[in-house]
Amino acid sequence: MTLARVLDRIDADLPKSLDRLFDLLRLKSISADPAFAKEVRAAGEHCVALLAEMGFEASLRETPLHPIVVAHWTGPVENADKHVLFYGHYDVQPVDPLNLWRADPFDPKIETIEDGVKVITGRGSADDKGQVVIFLEALRALLAEDGRLPVKVTVLLEGEEESGSPSLEPFLAANAAELSHDVALVCDTNMWARGRPAITTSLRGLVGEEVRVACSNRDLHSGIFGGAAWNPIRVLTKILASLHDDAGRVTLPGFYDGVADLPEEVRASWDALGTTAETFLRPVGLKTAAGEAGRSILEQVWARPTCEFNGITGGYTGDGFKTVLPAKASAKVSFRLVGAQDPDAIRAAFRARVAEMLPPDAEVSFHPHGGSPGFSMPFDSPWLTGAREALAEEWGIPALLIGSGGSIPVGNAFARILGMPTLFVGFGLDDDRIHSPNEKYDLESFHKGLRSWARILKKLA
Amino acid sequence: MTLARVLDRIDADLPKSLDRLFDLLRLKSISADPAFAKEVRAAGEHCVALLAEMGFEASLRETPLHPIVVAHWTGPVENADKHVLFYGHYDVQPVDPLNLWRADPFDPKIETIEDGVKVITGRGSADDKGQVVIFLEALRALLAEDGRLPVKVTVLLEGEEESGSPSLEPFLAANAAELSHDVALVCDTNMWARGRPAITTSLRGLVGEEVRVACSNRDLHSGIFGGAAWNPIRVLTKILASLHDDAGRVTLPGFYDGVADLPEEVRASWDALGTTAETFLRPVGLKTAAGEAGRSILEQVWARPTCEFNGITGGYTGDGFKTVLPAKASAKVSFRLVGAQDPDAIRAAFRARVAEMLPPDAEVSFHPHGGSPGFSMPFDSPWLTGAREALAEEWGIPALLIGSGGSIPVGNAFARILGMPTLFVGFGLDDDRIHSPNEKYDLESFHKGLRSWARILKKLA
Repeated sequence: MTLARVLDRIDADLPKSLDRLFDLLRLKSISADPAFAKEVRAAGEHCVALLAEMGFEASLRETPLHPIVVAHWTGPVENADKHVLFYGHYDVQPVDPLNLWRADPFDPKIETIEDGVKVITGRGSADDKGQVVIFLEALRALLAEDGRLPVKVTVLLEGEEESGSPSLEPFLAANAAELSHDVALVCDTNMWARGRPAITTSLRGLVGEEVRVACSNRDLHSGIFGGAAWNPIRVLTKILASLHDDAGRVTLPGFYDGVADLPEEVRASWDALGTTAETFLRPVGLKTAAGEAGRSILEQVWARPTCEFNGITGGYTGDGFKTVLPAKASAKVSFRLVGAQDPDAIRAAFRARVAEMLPPDAEVSFHPHGGSPGFSMPFDSPWLTGAREALAEEWGIPALLIGSGGSIPVGNAFARILGMPTLFVGFGLDDDRIHSPNEKYDLESFHKGLRSWARILKKLA
Repeated sequence: MTLARVLDRIDADLPKSLDRLFDLLRLKSISADPAFAKEVRAAGEHCVALLAEMGFEASLRETPLHPIVVAHWTGPVENADKHVLFYGHYDVQPVDPLNLWRADPFDPKIETIEDGVKVITGRGSADDKGQVVIFLEALRALLAEDGRLPVKVTVLLEGEEESGSPSLEPFLAANAAELSHDVALVCDTNMWARGRPAITTSLRGLVGEEVRVACSNRDLHSGIFGGAAWNPIRVLTKILASLHDDAGRVTLPGFYDGVADLPEEVRASWDALGTTAETFLRPVGLKTAAGEAGRSILEQVWARPTCEFNGITGGYTGDGFKTVLPAKASAKVSFRLVGAQDPDAIRAAFRARVAEMLPPDAEVSFHPHGGSPGFSMPFDSPWLTGAREALAEEWGIPALLIGSGGSIPVGNAFARILGMPTLFVGFGLDDDRIHSPNEKYDLESFHKGLRSWARILKKLA
């Protein structure tokens, strides 16, 4: 059986795979510092060379800042009906403060840390060169044993991720036909814990809206007009207070249209993690969940939509007191969306609520700030099913399906610009110290991650 | 009958009374401009001389800024059981811009304006020298005909009213025993309209409170924590929105304790004025009343307590949008009080409401800003009854009893420091252009106002 031989080769060639990672880690591809622009380009060229050596049609594509690596497999494929786009980045974070590093950040080593855990040290080991290289090495092992890849593969590696990816979205838009395929594989994510792989299957979308309420034509004296003239803070707080019921649910009509309940299996797997409101919120000084009654804290942040107030202002807000009756007040309101919630419908429902509660003497204006739907990989998607099976076989435990409460820009960009779903699979750990001194990547993440990608690619065929 | 003779003398001596007013109006007693400090003092000395000439024990009393005139009648009195304190001020507003005056502001004249109305022109004619002089001239006429005053009289004239009265309250406190008597007569108020005298019988009190709600120990990202962490703007808006019911009533328990309904006669007199929400609010761009349903607009501002929001702030309030989940939010809330409402009880009821609605993860702090009860002259007070009868006899129409939605500092000071009620009686008109160029005082206000004071003093005996 091919897969067994592929995995054996991966095990046998591990030292060579590590050597190739170390070569890449030695390149100081700090994208945020113009002094390192040449090393960024050198790292991109290094990736192109690795891919070309395997037979990919690989090239560096120019952008206004750092180049993007694009590589297409044009050789034989087991299942040519399926085409995946792999995304990663070859640039790294700056290394200051250098004196906090125990060793040269660009001289990678294998070290043993507490509990006998072996790790690869160095800037970029986890974020993202280690995670990129295991995918490339999986391709190498598959080709070596099989002479072909399980599915069609395009590789996209950017060099600006640590600088806010200014060129990525324009590049995707300009090359949509070349890059839009069946599914994106995005690798710069973490496992749930050591030994416990995870796949992020949903991101929340966002609708932002500023609402401004105006009443009188100027600020009034509350002695003369108090009680008689409409106060825009009173109008606005009544409206905002109407948006959540006592159970923490959002009261806009149709708000939960398109919000599916979690499959029982997923809910049970989340409950089994033991994350409580208290453990989740303790770091920020809180202990009770503010979301919908009867939903666990993880469900509240990963799988449920919200209405939050991000800012409010009106009247006199300085020191001391003024008995002013203000002419206007405003609030910034945002909704995090999940599933198939429609941003336009939710913005319209919010505006309708405001209009409906507005007294005759108040005027309102709305100022939209962004609107994007949530993203979710259907729990019965074959991409997801295949990846889960592969991960379970490698790790001996089912991969956890998790959500992300916020947006992951690249996932939203792939959905919006390329119209493709994303499978977020990565083997980082929360203690990898990415963006900090003494970044590391577990040797197990490298080795079993590499084997995992070989298994996933086979399954996807 | 003495009163008839007194009134005849007033009519006969009107030219002399006007001369004495004009002498005072020629003194440039602009208290806000240090260049006029000597003229302010000269005006105070002039008042002392007028009072001394009538037989008062009168003197200028020093303060850190401009002196205060205090004069006691120690001669014969018809009813020595009653003692009134008359309050006015002898300083005036600055006259800039001088080029907008049709004549020298300190060269008073009698002029005829539209509709044949005769007016006294000049800075201070209405505010407040004209209103002060008619009281002094009434005393003079009473003494001339009667050889005694109807009641004991103390006169208090300050020289800093147009500069915020910095010395008045300390002076009242330091001389409380000398100045605290049965009732204060305060003269710098207006009639309702030409020919329609008015007495202000109530002032609203004030409780100010800043409430600050804090949740997490820092601002949070609404993607990561949105839905799960308590949002202080949500907490605060829920609390504020609970304070008014749909009928505009304040919902704090016991809030209306001590709030009496208007006597039917007073309500009818207000309704008869024809002031509607639309006429009252049109100048500020509004048209519907925001107060309690079923109460007229005048009742809402003159006779009903309020809860107003004077300021609110929380989260991001700059341009654009931030998906921040703020750590804290705060609001400035004030209550205007009427009748016997207890400021302490209302502050406590507000704090109890906040505490009761606070989720376990939110903390609150309160910052008080002032607390003073409303003031009201009981509608059956003999002072009020006497003054109303006197005004009705002079003007041929009942004096309107009105309220003031805000505080009148001197009225609050007399109540708080001297523990005495105030009868606000003045004969100014809304078109007197006080504080503006071309200030005037109707000759009818002067003449009938002078006669009114003689009648009132007789009635109070």
